[in-house]
Amino acid sequence: MDTSGTQSTETEFSTKGTYVTGEEYTRDTNYIETRITRGGEDGYPVEAGRYRLVVSRACPWAHRSTIVRRLLGLEDAISIGVTGPTHDVRSWTFDLDEGGVDPVLGIERLQDAYFKRTPNYPRGITVPAIVDVPSGAVVTNNFPQITLDFSTEWTEFHREGAPDLYPEALREEMTPVMKRIFTEVNNGVYRCGFAGSQEAYNAAYERLFVALDWLEERLAGQRYLMGGSITEADVRLFTTLVRFDAVYHGHFKCNRNKLTEMPVLWAYARDLFQTPGFGDTVNFAQIKDHYYIVHEDLNPTQIVPLGPDTSGWSTAHGRESLGGSPFGSGTAPTRPVDA
Amino acid sequence: MDTSGTQSTETEFSTKGTYVTGEEYTRDTNYIETRITRGGEDGYPVEAGRYRLVVSRACPWAHRSTIVRRLLGLEDAISIGVTGPTHDVRSWTFDLDEGGVDPVLGIERLQDAYFKRTPNYPRGITVPAIVDVPSGAVVTNNFPQITLDFSTEWTEFHREGAPDLYPEALREEMTPVMKRIFTEVNNGVYRCGFAGSQEAYNAAYERLFVALDWLEERLAGQRYLMGGSITEADVRLFTTLVRFDAVYHGHFKCNRNKLTEMPVLWAYARDLFQTPGFGDTVNFAQIKDHYYIVHEDLNPTQIVPLGPDTSGWSTAHGRESLGGSPFGSGTAPTRPVDA
Repeated sequence: MDTSGTQSTETEFSTKGTYVTGEEYTRDTNYIETRITRGGEDGYPVEAGRYRLVVSRACPWAHRSTIVRRLLGLEDAISIGVTGPTHDVRSWTFDLDEGGVDPVLGIERLQDAYFKRTPNYPRGITVPAIVDVPSGAVVTNNFPQITLDFSTEWTEFHREGAPDLYPEALREEMTPVMKRIFTEVNNGVYRCGFAGSQEAYNAAYERLFVALDWLEERLAGQRYLMGGSITEADVRLFTTLVRFDAVYHGHFKCNRNKLTEMPVLWAYARDLFQTPGFGDTVNFAQIKDHYYIVHEDLNPTQIVPLGPDTSGWSTAHGRESLGGSPFGSGTAPTRPVDA
Repeated sequence: MDTSGTQSTETEFSTKGTYVTGEEYTRDTNYIETRITRGGEDGYPVEAGRYRLVVSRACPWAHRSTIVRRLLGLEDAISIGVTGPTHDVRSWTFDLDEGGVDPVLGIERLQDAYFKRTPNYPRGITVPAIVDVPSGAVVTNNFPQITLDFSTEWTEFHREGAPDLYPEALREEMTPVMKRIFTEVNNGVYRCGFAGSQEAYNAAYERLFVALDWLEERLAGQRYLMGGSITEADVRLFTTLVRFDAVYHGHFKCNRNKLTEMPVLWAYARDLFQTPGFGDTVNFAQIKDHYYIVHEDLNPTQIVPLGPDTSGWSTAHGRESLGGSPFGSGTAPTRPVDA
């Protein structure tokens, strides 16, 4: 849910979250919680062709939804709109599209869809957002729920062989794992990068690497976070790991070591990267452009590094020897990657 | 010769060099070229106890002089004054000393010694600088000559077993090697970090890694740059390599890879680090403080990263198997490291 600015009177800095005592970065976790469900309880029933998922390839929170959509084969049921990697102070924009206009929604700026839902919507204009195409209004930007609903509410439209990313039998165990990954890793890197003081940064750095050491240990003996098959938890961890050396290591000063220097996590990340649905949804150039150009307060020159060398992502990882079955009783997605 | 500001009307940015067409960073390489020689041709004869070498532990150009002084055992002949790692816009300062005053020179700011030499000295107040203690005036800040003169003019005061860092038989071959190391590596990292445009940065990055790849190859089959023994060329390369992962990789965006990811150079650098006179003159904390706090235009938060983990520097390097003799027919320095 990387944000662009808002139309409100908030300061520019507040678009990234708020600062509390000790100048620790705190993410604004209030989203539009409307859900698209089978029964349409919130007014938005599951319906093929009705909704458009708007993402940026740069954003880790949006990245979850593109991976899950592809793993489950929801491409025909839910179309996708892709914004450019950078945004101005007001909104993510469709600058990758011809004429700078999303061909389905007919808008230049994602904020227009937010304003259709709530005039002068006061919070961040975030991705991912699901837009109701007939009304042009954002239904939800509640990213942690979006992917779970893809798994549980959109089953009618799953492809044949779609994996169960949120198995009932594992949910109780998954909840604390996913929570720790969110607070300590997904958000932990931002806590380092957006720390408002040396003290806040130091604390954030220690906290991040405690979590990464925990993961290095957890994944040493099992192929995926919850065992032998990929789940939603792996998707959530992957989106941070794949950005780690490209942006978090240098730009956010998460630099005890690179991901490439943690043998287990690096092999685990490569294993996922080489699995259809993961690496094929990654765009390193857009990731780097986003962070290094948008965060002018951290990188005033807006120069984007040419490194790191990403050729290592395609090298052998050896994780097959841990056994398991990536898609459980299902199969890998095979259709070509869309835009 | 990292500089602090000047008293002139130059802009703040010009203290780091000047920009030419294409916004490539260009270092000001004009120094006070007076030499201290055996014959005293420039008015400053070699004389034990007369001169004070002023350095910052942070600065790679000053670092050369502390390594060579120690390798040659010139500690008793030439005293040392150490400034703090950061400096204000005007001068390096003796803020590590009691009362903020250098105990021998009796000054708070290095610029006072420059002004004793030339009132309103218009160039950068740089380290290393050698000060004539009786007059309190800077004799020279010409760092490439300072270390060569330690080797060739101060022989009378070399310790027993001092190595020959500038052997006559090798000088012809050393000159182009040292020149390439200066322009492509020592200064190459600055060309990346201080690039004034994306294009200038891209060109600087490519140029730097071409040189590092050349060194990776050159050092694969021989223990040191000029063969089996340490020379001035190794000293000059080491001071950049030891700072590479700590500051140049992230802060200057020299991030195709870390030094730790170039097996030959990393082993070579560790070999030197573990040799008396090299690692014992390194202060990683002061190095990081300098770059991350002083370059506010690159790092406006002035937050200093806690990483990288430096424990790898003391691990086995295996370079002994290449043979050679680090100090030639001489021996390692054994006296305790001074301030």
